[in-house]
Amino acid sequence: MNEFELIGKLTRSLPANKSLVTGAGDDCAVLDLGIPDRLVLFKTDAVVEGFHFTSETPPEKVGRKALGRCISDIAAMAGTPNSALITLALPRHYDLDYVEGIYAGLGELARKFDVSIAGGETTTNPERILISISLLGTVEREKCIFRSGALAGDAIFVTGELGGSISGKHLDFEPRLTEAHWLRDHFAIHSMIDLSDGLAGDLRHLLKASHVGSELMASAIPVSREAKLASKAESSAKPPLLAALTDGEDFELLFTIASKDAVPLLDGWKHQFPKVKLSCIGKVTAGEGINLRDKQGIRPLTAHGYVHLK
Amino acid sequence: MNEFELIGKLTRSLPANKSLVTGAGDDCAVLDLGIPDRLVLFKTDAVVEGFHFTSETPPEKVGRKALGRCISDIAAMAGTPNSALITLALPRHYDLDYVEGIYAGLGELARKFDVSIAGGETTTNPERILISISLLGTVEREKCIFRSGALAGDAIFVTGELGGSISGKHLDFEPRLTEAHWLRDHFAIHSMIDLSDGLAGDLRHLLKASHVGSELMASAIPVSREAKLASKAESSAKPPLLAALTDGEDFELLFTIASKDAVPLLDGWKHQFPKVKLSCIGKVTAGEGINLRDKQGIRPLTAHGYVHLK
Repeated sequence: MNEFELIGKLTRSLPANKSLVTGAGDDCAVLDLGIPDRLVLFKTDAVVEGFHFTSETPPEKVGRKALGRCISDIAAMAGTPNSALITLALPRHYDLDYVEGIYAGLGELARKFDVSIAGGETTTNPERILISISLLGTVEREKCIFRSGALAGDAIFVTGELGGSISGKHLDFEPRLTEAHWLRDHFAIHSMIDLSDGLAGDLRHLLKASHVGSELMASAIPVSREAKLASKAESSAKPPLLAALTDGEDFELLFTIASKDAVPLLDGWKHQFPKVKLSCIGKVTAGEGINLRDKQGIRPLTAHGYVHLK
Repeated sequence: MNEFELIGKLTRSLPANKSLVTGAGDDCAVLDLGIPDRLVLFKTDAVVEGFHFTSETPPEKVGRKALGRCISDIAAMAGTPNSALITLALPRHYDLDYVEGIYAGLGELARKFDVSIAGGETTTNPERILISISLLGTVEREKCIFRSGALAGDAIFVTGELGGSISGKHLDFEPRLTEAHWLRDHFAIHSMIDLSDGLAGDLRHLLKASHVGSELMASAIPVSREAKLASKAESSAKPPLLAALTDGEDFELLFTIASKDAVPLLDGWKHQFPKVKLSCIGKVTAGEGINLRDKQGIRPLTAHGYVHLK
């Protein structure tokens, strides 16, 4: 049973009260706590030594990544992060400098995005460091962007370049908060998600939530330089397009918008964010799943974010 | 460096924005997110296999305990819990029935207190199960009770009986939410904290936050039957009074109130909660620290929650 099947099983009949707008199944939980013009966004995310970072990773980058992942989820709903709590599970004989380094990295990113570190706790996890972050944010009531709003005919866009994040970007990425706010304020974005599990996997989440399908143009998918280099360096590495489709931790935004808005969006974006790529990679269709079009024709991607090319 | 020294070091200069009312240093963080008549309470707490429960603990009790600890913290600020996120860190080959049992226990307690389980995530922790809960609540703006409001002359009260929680209560305790709301609605409670680290340790947190001291009457401290039995059963066990002062995980409420209100409070409580003990255990004093009075006279308790009797 993979992570998503487990979550599906566990979340089938969870308790809910009248404040809950959206529970499990979007980038953040959405709550109505009675703020006149805003909804509350609530997110939790953990990084674990040996999986999301190693004992060799500079601690500032570990802290930065842990918080950055959560900010990226708030961005994906067009919200503004507000306050974080930090749970730090440490071996008994931890290195105090390393722990202070984690907090330094966390703190720097928090200041940049005006997020309070409102507290947290330390506990014991003897074998490895685990950092769990809870982040609260808010979003204008009428401007929250869900995964579930994609419509057949929408154009599908992605920010940045994809794949090969493991070579460094997974520690250094910039959560696309400014970009998400600009999109929210200038265009009618129908649906949005951040890319943490890989383009194919996360697009599938969005399509499923919206009850639609998609057709991607292979040539339009922005493959990162790192994915291309990795593929050249090692014959056993993924082909670059496969890396762009299935590598995790890109932390870019994937969103859909009425196709009539696609050209004005690209024009405006180029002017606003000259250094950040924006690519139209395909369109939303009736039906389900992801179809990939390339020179050889069109074929479905298989489940779970993986694609068998050849 | 113990947990509190580490937290003190890490929290010395944390980022804060204008929403933050109280950060690290009370039972919950307190935020002003613009709800007209209410503040937001934000809490995170983790339980770890081998420390807070064992692989033999029934999973329903593990889930119940994990959420109950957080609800107890919301109660200690006179708030109402609203929504929780669950982070479940699991070994690769977990037992699905066990994990479903954890969720069943969580869900049952959540329903009882009308708390939404709004989502969360699963991640990998190869050696042991770790469950981190984030809980959001709210509290009336004028009725939030902090640790820092104790005044010299206050009477000090504690609910329930203390010590020996390890023999079962740490898994079965009832968060004192109903009692906290009744106290809030009927009396001017000056300060409150929940007992998770033991009476002496938590009272010390409250006194420090309020810049006052205290005098406890040894004979008034409500020692649990379990603490007495444990002491009889084993000569190496703590004496019962020491257990009541220093055992953790009582999850009772400790609070202070003007001494003139002590008798009406005891009368009202007996009528409202005939099955829950309420004890006046001493008084708040100018000065600092905890002094314990018994037949032999009065003497200070040493730091860190431990007391050397004889």
